[in-house]
Amino acid sequence: MSSEKMHKQDAIDLSHHLSVRGRSYERSPLKALIARYDDRPGLIKLFSGAPHEDYFPITSVDVHALPYDNFSATPASLSNSVSWFKRFFGLAPAQPKPITFTINHDPAPGDNGLNLTKALQYNPVRGLDYVAATINDFAARAFQPAYADFKTLLHTGNTDGWSRVLQILAEPGDTIIGEEWIYASALTAGAPANLKFISIEMDDEGLLPEKLRERLAGWDESVKGKRPHLMYTVPVGQNPSGRTMGLKRKQEVYDVCAEFDIIILEDDPYYFLQAGLYKPKDVRARTATSGANQTDEEWLASLAPSFLRVDTQGRVIRIDTVSKFLAPGLRLGWFTTSPLFAERLERVGEVATQAPNGLGTAVVGGLLREWTQDGFIRWLRGVRALYTVRRDYFVDALYDTFDVERSVVTEKTDGRDVCVAYAKQNGMREKGVRRPLFEFIPPTSGLFIWLKVAFPPYLRHRYHNSKESLEMLFWTSLADNGVVFSPGNFFSYVGKGAEDVPDFNAEGHYRISFSHVSPADARKTAQILDATLREFFAA
Amino acid sequence: MSSEKMHKQDAIDLSHHLSVRGRSYERSPLKALIARYDDRPGLIKLFSGAPHEDYFPITSVDVHALPYDNFSATPASLSNSVSWFKRFFGLAPAQPKPITFTINHDPAPGDNGLNLTKALQYNPVRGLDYVAATINDFAARAFQPAYADFKTLLHTGNTDGWSRVLQILAEPGDTIIGEEWIYASALTAGAPANLKFISIEMDDEGLLPEKLRERLAGWDESVKGKRPHLMYTVPVGQNPSGRTMGLKRKQEVYDVCAEFDIIILEDDPYYFLQAGLYKPKDVRARTATSGANQTDEEWLASLAPSFLRVDTQGRVIRIDTVSKFLAPGLRLGWFTTSPLFAERLERVGEVATQAPNGLGTAVVGGLLREWTQDGFIRWLRGVRALYTVRRDYFVDALYDTFDVERSVVTEKTDGRDVCVAYAKQNGMREKGVRRPLFEFIPPTSGLFIWLKVAFPPYLRHRYHNSKESLEMLFWTSLADNGVVFSPGNFFSYVGKGAEDVPDFNAEGHYRISFSHVSPADARKTAQILDATLREFFAA
Repeated sequence: MSSEKMHKQDAIDLSHHLSVRGRSYERSPLKALIARYDDRPGLIKLFSGAPHEDYFPITSVDVHALPYDNFSATPASLSNSVSWFKRFFGLAPAQPKPITFTINHDPAPGDNGLNLTKALQYNPVRGLDYVAATINDFAARAFQPAYADFKTLLHTGNTDGWSRVLQILAEPGDTIIGEEWIYASALTAGAPANLKFISIEMDDEGLLPEKLRERLAGWDESVKGKRPHLMYTVPVGQNPSGRTMGLKRKQEVYDVCAEFDIIILEDDPYYFLQAGLYKPKDVRARTATSGANQTDEEWLASLAPSFLRVDTQGRVIRIDTVSKFLAPGLRLGWFTTSPLFAERLERVGEVATQAPNGLGTAVVGGLLREWTQDGFIRWLRGVRALYTVRRDYFVDALYDTFDVERSVVTEKTDGRDVCVAYAKQNGMREKGVRRPLFEFIPPTSGLFIWLKVAFPPYLRHRYHNSKESLEMLFWTSLADNGVVFSPGNFFSYVGKGAEDVPDFNAEGHYRISFSHVSPADARKTAQILDATLREFFAA
Repeated sequence: MSSEKMHKQDAIDLSHHLSVRGRSYERSPLKALIARYDDRPGLIKLFSGAPHEDYFPITSVDVHALPYDNFSATPASLSNSVSWFKRFFGLAPAQPKPITFTINHDPAPGDNGLNLTKALQYNPVRGLDYVAATINDFAARAFQPAYADFKTLLHTGNTDGWSRVLQILAEPGDTIIGEEWIYASALTAGAPANLKFISIEMDDEGLLPEKLRERLAGWDESVKGKRPHLMYTVPVGQNPSGRTMGLKRKQEVYDVCAEFDIIILEDDPYYFLQAGLYKPKDVRARTATSGANQTDEEWLASLAPSFLRVDTQGRVIRIDTVSKFLAPGLRLGWFTTSPLFAERLERVGEVATQAPNGLGTAVVGGLLREWTQDGFIRWLRGVRALYTVRRDYFVDALYDTFDVERSVVTEKTDGRDVCVAYAKQNGMREKGVRRPLFEFIPPTSGLFIWLKVAFPPYLRHRYHNSKESLEMLFWTSLADNGVVFSPGNFFSYVGKGAEDVPDFNAEGHYRISFSHVSPADARKTAQILDATLREFFAA
């Protein structure tokens, strides 16, 4: 690692990207003073308004947790195991072998600073040292940034992460580069600064670099204002479209960003939920699951890499969160980025929430310590396997309910086939040519299936007086029939100056989250979808 | 309460105070959708990207905590009790009777929603219902707002609170009204938006309403830009000056703010640390401590009230934090304000940290439930008594080391005397007239003692070539001699357009926090102060 590091360059100076606001954050003089004197022995320190630790009412916390290997590492062994299957759906009592650790009030040797005296006190924005250091090691190992002096910094989840990035990089009214479909809450976060978003076309692997180049090269500042300098991307299990970008594509996109001096915000909550290709039930039954014999290290290396892996300049700000693999309520995540951006983002934290909640951070620290870092990676693999099973049986339900035809678009899709769903031929044969009901690409990562429903002209004609788009009308029909998806228009910038507004009367898009659905409800969902499509499309 | 509430009016419309940014926060459409459908029975809800609760690694948490009556309610019984005194300083093993409660993974009847399935999941910005409701009841009881439709909203501490308020109310470059001395971190929070601060003169009770009126009435917008419309105040145990504002003064200040349409941000972390008047050791020895026979309810009613008590219009945004009476690391606090401001502040939270950390919130919820609300008030009283003892022995140390003369300025100071400290007459008698070394007002609330040192002209002459002010030179001498205070210039706006910059060569101010100092270190501090003053002032 260190010899490799010697060959990497440090981040280049990208400070010209900072907004007026971003430049204006100041270090708190009190905090600077504390840093200057905090370690002098014998000094009587009366500068801090910190309360006395002996008056904290919580004296100790015993944490009971699952072992890191609580879940099978591969979906194969999961789905072949009847006892596992029962446990997975709560049909039999779970039989975890819980681990237990205690966060004590008083500091003790070897507690790694994970005590309540420390954790419940004011802490610097960086958070508890042990957790910050463990996360830093893990990020280095998992993401392997291509420059030497990257930093990590804890935050309180990726919403906070994106919001802080906007505070330091975006001027009011700026235009942000987004993917064809953009995570709804990322759009909402742009509202306070009246940010506009443009959408760059995607294929089955995500954002298209040539489309990005085209858009940037053709940008006329005299008409459209300042050319965008910040891109928001969810490159793995894209929210909402479920696409995942491989190394080669990332390199191509990165090169365009370097050419046009774009900062890349990589929002990557589903990174460790890379499920791999969907194989229909019958195929799964007769083939071995790839990765069944992988070591944890091999598994980690097999994942589509982070943008950091191609970032030789420090122009990527990556945000991770523990939400999808530990728990969202912990409100904990981290930035991996250049020293420049890390410092500015730390300053933003100082005047907002400060350090992440100390109790939650200490509990995460205890968990990581008990598990060890290798155990943590094994845990990630288990969670990934669980969601892979969920992905599989949800897509199975679509296959079972509809006639699904896989159309391999090109060689390069590598199996990320577009699936076209038709009504089953069950006596209700439609007149004339067989019409596709919807399309989807089985996701290789993340929690979402993204359906595209094409509305034929006669429907557009029938509802042309409706205030609602066909997308929302169909969404309402689905809700009335008992299932609620997220409608596609949530994931499209439709505000002031919007340039890329889809025609929601031509196509409807629906994001289905499969994270909570049972196999029975998955089948029921597919059936409701089927019935509602027939109803809605009835000529 | 309800009949009283019927006579109160609702908040008036103050929406013209919202900044461009403050108006622009949007509700996340996903969150709005969730609210719309979340309670429909039987509906299959596949719109949320929430992870599955069965995969949260933490299965339960046992919390061990102090009983609400762990500490004596009055400083009198504290300081008269030898066994208590030993325990207070760790000379004898503490004998708490800990309470224990468990936060389980699965929801159960009667758990008030304080389970990990809920607490570790995504939650609305309002946080866990039980905690939000308990805090709301408590705020109503403790602060008694003078209008009917006030709201409370959890935040992640008062730094977050103030920062959110600036996001919704301040335009870049605005001028904020501050007190004569302003909490350093409140100034730092203004930097990103390039806010200016003006300082309104204080007496021993805090901000002077006639000075505020004068300043606002004389504001020439053609010269100084928009007249300020937001005031930042720490009215109890003011940070740094330690002053506390009573009801009458608050009414007078409020009336000026209503007249000039000012929003009052009441940052009140020390509200429940109202220690009462300092009485020198000998006086304490021969008089009963007031309040020894008070009930908890009487104690609560005896506190200097919040600005909310006089707020008939909803122009106060009050921020509370659990930092000083539970623990800062919990990163939990709350707003009490009008529905308009509460709604905007909730939106700010949605695109930042979202709900406060669920684990920490659940633990606070469990504690409040175990203690009951009456017990919680009793706990507050105990913490207040502990800091009162600390205040007393620190001021005692100053009395013991220096000749302190109390100068009762006027009748109305009610004992908040200015204390003038002279060198003890111990053979090192100075030549000529006896010169005061420093002044202070023993604080009646909070954690700080604020010293004023007047530098005589010969010192100004001696150091006129120094780059550092006399205030910082003396501060450095103190640090070199072994004690670090916070220097006064941290608490003064000295940035662009500053109008009220004190002459740090004429007077030096020093904030002493007594929250952590032992009696021995308090004496040592006083002695170092004495020696450093003699050294520094030596002719």
